[in-house]
Amino acid sequence: MTERREPTYVYSEEQVAEKSGIARHFIDTRTQLNRNVDQADNFLVKRFYNLDHNTYLEGALPAKYKELMGLVASACLRCDDCINYHIIQSYRLGVARAEQEEAINVALVVGGSIVIPHLRRAYALLAELYA
Amino acid sequence: MTERREPTYVYSEEQVAEKSGIARHFIDTRTQLNRNVDQADNFLVKRFYNLDHNTYLEGALPAKYKELMGLVASACLRCDDCINYHIIQSYRLGVARAEQEEAINVALVVGGSIVIPHLRRAYALLAELYA
Amino acid sequence: MTERREPTYVYSEEQVAEKSGIARHFIDTRTQLNRNVDQADNFLVKRFYNLDHNTYLEGALPAKYKELMGLVASACLRCDDCINYHIIQSYRLGVARAEQEEAINVALVVGGSIVIPHLRRAYALLAELYA
Amino acid sequence: MTERREPTYVYSEEQVAEKSGIARHFIDTRTQLNRNVDQADNFLVKRFYNLDHNTYLEGALPAKYKELMGLVASACLRCDDCINYHIIQSYRLGVARAEQEEAINVALVVGGSIVIPHLRRAYALLAELYA
Amino acid sequence: MTERREPTYVYSEEQVAEKSGIARHFIDTRTQLNRNVDQADNFLVKRFYNLDHNTYLEGALPAKYKELMGLVASACLRCDDCINYHIIQSYRLGVARAEQEEAINVALVVGGSIVIPHLRRAYALLAELYA
Amino acid sequence: MTERREPTYVYSEEQVAEKSGIARHFIDTRTQLNRNVDQADNFLVKRFYNLDHNTYLEGALPAKYKELMGLVASACLRCDDCINYHIIQSYRLGVARAEQEEAINVALVVGGSIVIPHLRRAYALLAELYA
Repeated sequence: MTERREPTYVYSEEQVAEKSGIARHFIDTRTQLNRNVDQADNFLVKRFYNLDHNTYLEGALPAKYKELMGLVASACLRCDDCINYHIIQSYRLGVARAEQEEAINVALVVGGSIVIPHLRRAYALLAELYA
Repeated sequence: MTERREPTYVYSEEQVAEKSGIARHFIDTRTQLNRNVDQADNFLVKRFYNLDHNTYLEGALPAKYKELMGLVASACLRCDDCINYHIIQSYRLGVARAEQEEAINVALVVGGSIVIPHLRRAYALLAELYA
Repeated sequence: MTERREPTYVYSEEQVAEKSGIARHFIDTRTQLNRNVDQADNFLVKRFYNLDHNTYLEGALPAKYKELMGLVASACLRCDDCINYHIIQSYRLGVARAEQEEAINVALVVGGSIVIPHLRRAYALLAELYA
Repeated sequence: MTERREPTYVYSEEQVAEKSGIARHFIDTRTQLNRNVDQADNFLVKRFYNLDHNTYLEGALPAKYKELMGLVASACLRCDDCINYHIIQSYRLGVARAEQEEAINVALVVGGSIVIPHLRRAYALLAELYA
Repeated sequence: MTERREPTYVYSEEQVAEKSGIARHFIDTRTQLNRNVDQADNFLVKRFYNLDHNTYLEGALPAKYKELMGLVASACLRCDDCINYHIIQSYRLGVARAEQEEAINVALVVGGSIVIPHLRRAYALLAELYA
Repeated sequence: MTERREPTYVYSEEQVAEKSGIARHFIDTRTQLNRNVDQADNFLVKRFYNLDHNTYLEGALPAKYKELMGLVASACLRCDDCINYHIIQSYRLGVARAEQEEAINVALVVGGSIVIPHLRRAYALLAELYA
């Protein structure tokens, strides 16, 4: 069985927020909304969050590629919040901009032109993070 | 054949709007946008609206469970407006918060983590309605 | 916190398979394919299966309505295997045919005519189960 | 208000079935499955079928372009049965093969490479119909 | 092989923006976001944009019907930006409002009530363009 | 700009087909169906196929991770043919079974239980390839 362990981040969420206004807005809104979810203390939601966390740990695949896979899934399912989240996580793990772009390209070609509006917004975040 | 009839609401839309700013904003925006749709007077759109209305009437299934099914469908298809609509309708029919949360859990598990950003926003509305 | 517990089934899977050839084919194929999944013994897959199981237990909502919600989600996301599974589960919990049809109607109206081919196949299973 | 009327078909369903084995198999299976749906006599399903029928009548847009729009919708939502249906309907209305291909191209580019397996099967039907 | 050529527009993007505030906001935001994409100069993105452009040229099908097909695809895949884009393009090619409504109806019936919030916003743009 | 080049395969398609009946059936069916597509010689389809091919070349990201990203996209968009294709391609590039499983886990958690029937069929192919 593959061992799972927390990845080592190059940057903290706070450092990302200092670098990018888009990232800060996303992180702040998520934090605020998660407060309601935490207070509700729903058993299944907590278990799902935990499962979700476990999915992206270092394992048979390096964490950085799993975050990029999360980005591909988010982009082809067209969820801006999820795209922002995985771009930020990938950035925090030291992923290069060219690697992020190639992951988004997989989503663009698999998912089609309907992905383009999300790609445009993703590039706005990439531009701030990799400035 | 099952008889269909209008359900009995515990709360009016106006009472919901007084209780929750998120609900008011949703209801007001929808009302304003529906004005254009009403003016256009498109035959098929009107028939679809009518069919849609009939779907959620009391029938073989109690209306409250059909609204919760509408919530599940909306959450796993990831439409914030539709989620808000069915949460409000369920609330108006006297559905308890724990019931709304369990319906959202079905959508979360069937639909995956891509549902989470919508779940967060749904919980913000639940927090206001069930305060 | 809501207590969760196993629902009481009116019929076993074997009784369902005896009643319907479509159900038997579905159950047998799933059993055979699950053998590979079980042998792989993947930690996250097992946790997801467990979470999935917990979602449909008796809780704030009766299990039968949650199975019907699973049916709505499956139909509007258009997965024949999932539709078959939730129709069978609902049947095993004593859901009436008219209730199954109304749940499918919610999925039809929310999900549109693209649901119709799945509705047709669902009705073939309903016809065998409720013969 | 735009008047709606039945379109004039160049070919009957039977003529299509004589030309293409794929078409015959699709039409026969649909006929057989619709028997269950007809027997169930569900009020909302019948209304939805009726609404669906009205959508593709001659109106502000010629019926042939609406069938091709149904093809585009079916292909980007990836439903083989719906794709077959709209290809056959378009063929019956005298649509040229090059027109069908261009409609499928819109779906391919909007919907991405995930459409390709459906495009392959669509081309098998086109090859038989336009042989 | 079908020849492809640029369609002849009745209105420029600027004329559309003068007529509709919604259109202007959409066009301005897209222009601003595309600047990042252009600067990134990603080879595959540029090729995809080029392919996308080619899809809607005059060909076996008149460009106006292909834009309406793009609208149908966008509406049933539920992308507001894409809906706005194809409504504007169709308008620029001289498409009548009744034709746009019928295309949206195809998406509504194929895609279901989940399309309604997008239809409402589409009608707000139609109201401004065809005022 | 990142250079793109063909990846080096560890196994040929023929070797994969010899190892797995599921793979052989998939490859043979695709080859047969592609014949119609090739004969049609549609300009845009050929360009899309070419773009698709370019997406998975060695580049900023190793080809093996891009094939796994294609697998994640295919699984969360729920396309069995695409899942088979990317599992086979990943296998041909020397990807370990545990890596394939982790990629599928990302799709399972992002895409939800609706992915499970596809996961089951994917594991049947994995079992044959990695026997």
